[in-house]
Amino acid sequence: MKHKPFVIVVSAPSGTGKTTVLNYLKTLDNNLFYSVSATSRAKRPGEVDGRDYIFVSRQKFERWIEQGELLEWAEVYGEYYGTPRKPVRDALSRGMDIIMDLDVQGKRSLEREFKDDLVSIFLLPPDLAVLKQRLISRGAEDEEKLKLRLALAESELRWAYEYEYWVINDDVEKAANRILSIINAERMRQKRVIYKDLKK
Amino acid sequence: MKHKPFVIVVSAPSGTGKTTVLNYLKTLDNNLFYSVSATSRAKRPGEVDGRDYIFVSRQKFERWIEQGELLEWAEVYGEYYGTPRKPVRDALSRGMDIIMDLDVQGKRSLEREFKDDLVSIFLLPPDLAVLKQRLISRGAEDEEKLKLRLALAESELRWAYEYEYWVINDDVEKAANRILSIINAERMRQKRVIYKDLKK
Repeated sequence: MKHKPFVIVVSAPSGTGKTTVLNYLKTLDNNLFYSVSATSRAKRPGEVDGRDYIFVSRQKFERWIEQGELLEWAEVYGEYYGTPRKPVRDALSRGMDIIMDLDVQGKRSLEREFKDDLVSIFLLPPDLAVLKQRLISRGAEDEEKLKLRLALAESELRWAYEYEYWVINDDVEKAANRILSIINAERMRQKRVIYKDLKK
Repeated sequence: MKHKPFVIVVSAPSGTGKTTVLNYLKTLDNNLFYSVSATSRAKRPGEVDGRDYIFVSRQKFERWIEQGELLEWAEVYGEYYGTPRKPVRDALSRGMDIIMDLDVQGKRSLEREFKDDLVSIFLLPPDLAVLKQRLISRGAEDEEKLKLRLALAESELRWAYEYEYWVINDDVEKAANRILSIINAERMRQKRVIYKDLKK
C-alpha cells in the first residue's frame, strides 16, 4: 500500500525508557527515517556525531536559527537543541515517514509546522511506582536531587493529555511493536492512502 | 494495556473478498467479538444458524424492530437484515471490542449509536480491473447481469470516502493483519487507554 508520508513524535517522562524503545524499534522492519537533533553542547564520551546528535558550534546553531533552518529549537541549561529542517524534508520527499524524539515543546512546534501530518505518541511507565524505582536505581544520587527528579517526572507525566496515542512501556519489545502498529495504522488513514481508482 | 472497548465496522464493494479476510482475521490472536446479523430470509445449504446468520421469522424480526432490539436493520429484496443489540452490548460490557461486517447504511446507523466509539474500515480491491476480473470469474453469468454487478461495485467503491481507514486486499493474510494493526492502534488512542495514574 502506498501512502503520503507523515511525521511521528514520541515523548515520555524522564526514566520511561524512551531511548531503549526507539533503539529497539530501529531493529524492526520498517521504512522510517530517524531524525537526529542538533546541539551546541559538547560531545560526551561514547557519543557519535550524526548518530546521537549533530554537534555544531553555538555560532553555527545561531546562524541556523536566523536562516530558518530548524523545525524547532530550544535553549536548555544554556545549550541549544533543535531539529534541522532539511534532512526531514528530504526524507519526506523520498516517501519516508519520520520519527522524532522530542519533548512537549518540540511536539507543539512540530504540530504548527505539520498539522494533520503529525502523529503524536506518549510513552508511559507501567505506573508511577515503577518510574520512581527506575529513577532511584539510575544511580546513587543525593536525596534532594532524587526528589527533584521525581517531581519533574510526575509533572512531565501530565503532558500525556496532549498526545493522540498512549503506549505503556511494560516491556521494550512490546512497546516498540505497539509504536509500529500505530505507525502502520496511520499509514492506512483514508487521507493518506494513495489509491489510483479513487481521486482525492 | 487496558482500554475502553469499541466497535469496528468493515465494509467493502461486492467482490473485494471481505468475508475471506474477516474469516482469516478470526484465526489471528485477538480479543474480538464477531457480531452475527439476524435475517428473515431462508437458510441456504451449508449455512449454520448463529454462525452465518441468526435465522428468525418475519414476525419475530418485526417484533425486534418495534421493541428496539436492533442496532440497525434494513429490508433488502423483501427480506430483513439487522444487528441484534444485546450480544453487542453484552460483549462490550465484558471488555471485548466488536467487529461488524456491514454496508454503508449499516455503518451510518452505527455511527449515530456509537459516535466516537466506532472505527470504520473500508476494504478495497487492489484496483478496479482486479475487481472486475473477480466478478467475472465468480460464474458464468449472462452479459447484462455482469454489467449490472460491475456498475454496482463501482458505485459501492465510492462509499470509501466515508471511512476512516482504507485497507487494500492484495493478499488475504496481509489484509487481515492490516485490519489487526488498525484495531491495535485504536486500542491505544488516548481517549480509550485506562491508566490508573492519569485521571480522565
